[in-house]
Amino acid sequence: MTKPEPGKLMRPQRKLRDGIHVPKVTLAHGGGGKAMRDLIDDVFVSVFDNPVLAPLEDQARVSLSELALHGDRLAFTSDSFVVDPLEFPGGDIGKLAICGTVNDLAVGGAKPLFLSCSAIIEEGVAVALLRKLARSMAEAAAAAGVAIVTGDTKVVGHGACDKLFINTSGVGVIRAGVDLGAHRAETGDAILVNGLLGDHGAAILVARGDLHLETPIESDCAALNGLIDTLLDACPEVKFIRDATRGGIATVLNEIAEASGVGIEIDERAVPLRDEVKGFCEILGLDPLYLANEGKIVLVAPAALAEKARAALASHPLGRDAAIVGHVTAGPAGRVVMQTKFGGKRVVDMLVGEQLPRIC
Amino acid sequence: MTKPEPGKLMRPQRKLRDGIHVPKVTLAHGGGGKAMRDLIDDVFVSVFDNPVLAPLEDQARVSLSELALHGDRLAFTSDSFVVDPLEFPGGDIGKLAICGTVNDLAVGGAKPLFLSCSAIIEEGVAVALLRKLARSMAEAAAAAGVAIVTGDTKVVGHGACDKLFINTSGVGVIRAGVDLGAHRAETGDAILVNGLLGDHGAAILVARGDLHLETPIESDCAALNGLIDTLLDACPEVKFIRDATRGGIATVLNEIAEASGVGIEIDERAVPLRDEVKGFCEILGLDPLYLANEGKIVLVAPAALAEKARAALASHPLGRDAAIVGHVTAGPAGRVVMQTKFGGKRVVDMLVGEQLPRIC
Repeated sequence: MTKPEPGKLMRPQRKLRDGIHVPKVTLAHGGGGKAMRDLIDDVFVSVFDNPVLAPLEDQARVSLSELALHGDRLAFTSDSFVVDPLEFPGGDIGKLAICGTVNDLAVGGAKPLFLSCSAIIEEGVAVALLRKLARSMAEAAAAAGVAIVTGDTKVVGHGACDKLFINTSGVGVIRAGVDLGAHRAETGDAILVNGLLGDHGAAILVARGDLHLETPIESDCAALNGLIDTLLDACPEVKFIRDATRGGIATVLNEIAEASGVGIEIDERAVPLRDEVKGFCEILGLDPLYLANEGKIVLVAPAALAEKARAALASHPLGRDAAIVGHVTAGPAGRVVMQTKFGGKRVVDMLVGEQLPRIC
Repeated sequence: MTKPEPGKLMRPQRKLRDGIHVPKVTLAHGGGGKAMRDLIDDVFVSVFDNPVLAPLEDQARVSLSELALHGDRLAFTSDSFVVDPLEFPGGDIGKLAICGTVNDLAVGGAKPLFLSCSAIIEEGVAVALLRKLARSMAEAAAAAGVAIVTGDTKVVGHGACDKLFINTSGVGVIRAGVDLGAHRAETGDAILVNGLLGDHGAAILVARGDLHLETPIESDCAALNGLIDTLLDACPEVKFIRDATRGGIATVLNEIAEASGVGIEIDERAVPLRDEVKGFCEILGLDPLYLANEGKIVLVAPAALAEKARAALASHPLGRDAAIVGHVTAGPAGRVVMQTKFGGKRVVDMLVGEQLPRIC
């Protein structure tokens, strides 16, 4: 964003002292008319370009028989992204909005296919920043093998939203025979994660600058559909997968325990944590089990297949630090406990208040 | 919102002088933990309840063979709603968010089936208001025959958004044989609308209270899938349908003229307008062709079928005032003109700036 790119169809809104014109979004860009279409063409369509989006009708259209090539059930999901700041080490709101929705489809065993992108933009945001974030979305979508096929743009007055919110919704197709559900955990099943926990939460908190900390921690923001394909190809018996975003793995573990009416016990020594995240949590008194991730899954596998599932995860670049972190117990139903490194046990409750607002 | 309802799972956040506790949304409700789940259960799940939503996995799942009963192509669309004020004569943001996305599917010839609901909520919003708006969504969805099957809730700090934004995305199935597109207009085709124009735009502007005007105008906010079914059953040869929302019918007409490389001529005397909207526009110097609608479609039909299409629309309660407003001309390509009631002609250009921000 150092040097503004030429605003193809935008009039400059502000003149800087050095004479460079910085085109900004105005309310006119949200009016539904020519200015809006120019902004959409300039910022979004130019980089999202694909044959389904191209006609820009009110809805994208895809043949059902084409979808049926990938499986037997449609998966449909939606997520809004309000992360603050918009750009952070390891990613930005654009990459996050793509990866988040791709992951919400993939954890259901679906092949993610089509995404929407709906932006709510605050008057005054630099068009160059929007372009940069849209490019980031386009790159993340291409890397994940999904197409952005429909969308919407709203502009609100200065102060009516904080810079930019993005909603992505997604459709995918669930492969035949896969049946993943939080209610399927049984006593003895193994609990796994695909790698180091808490990086996203720590990276965002540091990026806000309030803590006056410097760390090399980057967000783990990544599309996990490739990893999950690898896992399900090797081990289709996996019973449940969920990405551990807001609320961290503690929240996912509690959801499994409650939905299946089982207990869960994890071993603190087995939970993979980066030293920097450990240190960060110690300084701030945070529990890494509650820190947000954007590239981590928790999964439940039958005990006999735990090592096979771990090895499958570890064979993929996004699962190198995969670990078996615990197992399902008979109960008490809904109770998650952690065997601490000191030999004691403590309850890992569901997060009650907020830990970090606007983490995703 | 005069008397707060009992907060099932919410602790009171503020005590009023009269001793009534008004539960408010706090940042804790966006943290991904127990408070968030309680809010979602309390406000949304309790009224959206349906078998697809019930499991609350990260994605809704629907069998493709079930979808294929309705047609041969999937339609997918997304829209964010930032309307100000949240409640207005004839509707509220909840009803609008359902009708808007139902209509975006229906104008493509699709049967709308499943919607998502993603809310971005400002800290401090009363839980009772959210409940009321969620009920409004549930009622509108039930009336339109769609199910809300997935969603997301984010909470941002005070001042980071203006009360509440809602994104709805939707999937539907396009009936076999229907092929609607803005590129299909040909010289001689008729242009129709299903009723009185501009009500939504006028209602919102009055509801903001800045104008110190009192009018009986209500938003025309309505789900049009039933009307469009009636139309396409009677007249499957219709070539194009679009809902005339932001930017009004002027914008839709320009889009048709451009996409089809044709001209369009409309007759001012044929454009159906409520006397109150006419007066409102005269006082404020607004052009009703650019006023937003939320229950109006523009459609293109072969000339020979124009009257049949009009009669089909008029047979439905939401099309009682349907009219043939103009026709497609050979050109100049992309040019829309209006024959005025005084006998002259004027160009109806695409809206260049904004007319009314945050109209939907």
